Amino acid sequence: MTPSQALPAVLARIDADLDHSLDRLFEFMRIQSISTDPAYKEQCRAAAEYVAGDLSGLGFDTDIRPTAGHPVVVGKGGDGSGPRGLFYGHYDVQPVDPLDLWETSPFAPRIATLPDGRKIIVGRGACDDKGQVMTFVEACRAFKAVTGRLPLPITMMIEGEEECGSKNLFGFVKDNADELRRDFALVCDTSMWDTTTPAITTSLRGLVYEEVKLTCADRDLHSGVFGGAAQNPLRVLARILAALHDDQGRITVPGFYDGVHELPPEVRADLAGLNLTAEDFLGGVGLKAPAGERDRMLIEQIATRPTAEINGIIGGYTGQGAKTVIPGQAMAKVSFRLVGAQDPQKIRDSFRAFVRERLPVDCRVEFGNFGSAPAIELPFDNPALAKTRSALSAEWGKKAVMVGEGGSIPIVGDFKRVLGMDTIMVGFALDDDRVHSPNEKYDLTSFHKGTRSWARILAALAE
Amino acid sequence: MTPSQALPAVLARIDADLDHSLDRLFEFMRIQSISTDPAYKEQCRAAAEYVAGDLSGLGFDTDIRPTAGHPVVVGKGGDGSGPRGLFYGHYDVQPVDPLDLWETSPFAPRIATLPDGRKIIVGRGACDDKGQVMTFVEACRAFKAVTGRLPLPITMMIEGEEECGSKNLFGFVKDNADELRRDFALVCDTSMWDTTTPAITTSLRGLVYEEVKLTCADRDLHSGVFGGAAQNPLRVLARILAALHDDQGRITVPGFYDGVHELPPEVRADLAGLNLTAEDFLGGVGLKAPAGERDRMLIEQIATRPTAEINGIIGGYTGQGAKTVIPGQAMAKVSFRLVGAQDPQKIRDSFRAFVRERLPVDCRVEFGNFGSAPAIELPFDNPALAKTRSALSAEWGKKAVMVGEGGSIPIVGDFKRVLGMDTIMVGFALDDDRVHSPNEKYDLTSFHKGTRSWARILAALAE
Repeated sequence: MTPSQALPAVLARIDADLDHSLDRLFEFMRIQSISTDPAYKEQCRAAAEYVAGDLSGLGFDTDIRPTAGHPVVVGKGGDGSGPRGLFYGHYDVQPVDPLDLWETSPFAPRIATLPDGRKIIVGRGACDDKGQVMTFVEACRAFKAVTGRLPLPITMMIEGEEECGSKNLFGFVKDNADELRRDFALVCDTSMWDTTTPAITTSLRGLVYEEVKLTCADRDLHSGVFGGAAQNPLRVLARILAALHDDQGRITVPGFYDGVHELPPEVRADLAGLNLTAEDFLGGVGLKAPAGERDRMLIEQIATRPTAEINGIIGGYTGQGAKTVIPGQAMAKVSFRLVGAQDPQKIRDSFRAFVRERLPVDCRVEFGNFGSAPAIELPFDNPALAKTRSALSAEWGKKAVMVGEGGSIPIVGDFKRVLGMDTIMVGFALDDDRVHSPNEKYDLTSFHKGTRSWARILAALAE
Repeated sequence: MTPSQALPAVLARIDADLDHSLDRLFEFMRIQSISTDPAYKEQCRAAAEYVAGDLSGLGFDTDIRPTAGHPVVVGKGGDGSGPRGLFYGHYDVQPVDPLDLWETSPFAPRIATLPDGRKIIVGRGACDDKGQVMTFVEACRAFKAVTGRLPLPITMMIEGEEECGSKNLFGFVKDNADELRRDFALVCDTSMWDTTTPAITTSLRGLVYEEVKLTCADRDLHSGVFGGAAQNPLRVLARILAALHDDQGRITVPGFYDGVHELPPEVRADLAGLNLTAEDFLGGVGLKAPAGERDRMLIEQIATRPTAEINGIIGGYTGQGAKTVIPGQAMAKVSFRLVGAQDPQKIRDSFRAFVRERLPVDCRVEFGNFGSAPAIELPFDNPALAKTRSALSAEWGKKAVMVGEGGSIPIVGDFKRVLGMDTIMVGFALDDDRVHSPNEKYDLTSFHKGTRSWARILAALAE
């Protein structure tokens, strides 16, 4: 019996076993695996042991691998042929403070009902990432129960430091490249488009983060004495930063758009079909109008187009009232989100040249770099992508959209760069999940249909 | 005998009496009249009493007038005819910390010699304003000694709160307008051009000080999610502030130059003749090139032309490293130095309109005002000005220059606005006097020839 032939029974099993699936998730969620706080070291270990035990029970050959921080659980399962997948997730969770904003204890998971009737799982990790990880594990469990085996060879890598920067995982992936390099990677740590529309994250924007410190006079000056004659670094900074965008919202740094690909027309049409409105996306934070490139849809501005943002400026007197100072120094932080094949090093160099060209006499600059990573792009012709898309569409009765995320999941970059492996990111989180915040939740539908979705995806990938 | 006829004897008397003059100044300087620190209240009173006693001894009808703060000494002297002058100065001094940077005790005045051979008076108040006030008092004393009377009717007003903002003096001037409204005011609280060139300060720049607070989103946003779509107030601020000046350094706020007068050709020629170089003026603070209006001399940029300066900007993340935030708010402080007949209210309104016009959708502004004062200009055809100029030139053997000061002496504005009285500002401070700093000094030449200068000025004004 092929995985596809087994699928109806697997889906039925998932439906029938939902209550037990929830019991297992709740047991996992009760473990206080807060990775950033050393006080929870043993709880992180316990979460790793829970995952390892669960995977062993499903026939995975499982290890708890030590790192300089919290351990990584690695499980190898599936004996058949077919493409081999690496599933990545994390067992650690965010801290829970401020504790008094939680309606119930963060580590006492429960089912609740929203005013609109949606059933939700409430608790720390309900979504990020315990709930999402368990959608995949439960799909594997159902295959195991129905067919006695996994639908394809799967390597699990569940880490414990995602919420504190995955700092030991980069070396771990490099050191264990041979056993982690599979045909593709699967990650369940992203979102649906909305409550009824599944999504595949096909790109993650890269980043260049620069600090610009300008110095003019060797001290702060009194504007009553020097005003009009002394170069003012805030004025220089304002002119440079104002020049970063033209009137159409395009970034003016030379060569900035090199490597930015236009979307295939059908992908663009799909995005247009989502009809993301400014009201939907910006209304919740008090804004009305997209502020990016004028000739781009809002969804392109936030997901598939590169950006330049001023993240901070400081200089001169910023306290109460007046001080007539001309500061000696001024500083700005500027970051660029990258897409496609934009080269972070070239963009950093071009930005620095852009700044230097605009420096008047009497103004010197020092740069600092706090981030440089290329964008991640899943090629639209990746065969696993088409299969995943069909599988999701079948489960949700609606075309799955391919979206770019503005942020980044750093390890996915390493999968590509170090292991040469593309990653398919499918997740069932929703915008109102309060990830990282008090009263984190995960829709019961996300959990249930997410599990069913993975069963369909695994069956499709096994073909 | 007219004052002019008496002048040679008066000058001789000043020379002969120099040591006694210094003794009197030192006695005045030993009084620790720090007005900002309530612990020195009695010392401030003592300084007022010292001044009152000295003036009484010269025949002034003297009062120590209470205010809500430190008292004002008012003395009325001179029984003859002739134009009537009001002399303004202050008996209070700046705090002395950091005390460990003083080479000797700040209230133990002494004579020292600089490496270049200049004799100097060292101590708090040596220049600001005890030394400067005493140049005028000693000139009066010499007239009194030689002729038995003052050369013209003089009202003295010596206050004790200049170093903490003269906050009670404005009401005092208003309440005592009739007795303080004379034909002109004299102030000795300004500087020479250099060690050999006397100067008359004929203008003080006015000020408009604005705070601009921009708000876009109702919270800080993550640039990974919202970057590209959400309006960024730092970007808006940079564009607005960058637009304040054109490429020629001219200020672009509509109507800004209304009321700015061109200097009379001869005054401009005098200024040009001073040949103030960028190296002289800016070299000491690490700068090389004047940054103001390109078609103006450096001396115009700092003294006679209006300016716009960004005094501070803050917004977003300004700590160590990276934070990919799009801030909800950003703030800047912007000040304008005004000259001539520029109207602070109109400029404030025009600046606010300038900002509002440049606000995109999703950005609102709140303004704060922390200063609004017109410039003070002594009309070049004021007859007292010409007399003062001739007198100074006679003493120093060099044409006295007429300069504008970038800063302001607030009470001078009230003399004009409340009393309708022009002020002639003559002082003998030098750039290296360390006013407000440890080891404050006043050149012995400033004190001696300053006293002689006032004798000559008083004789000329009495004509």
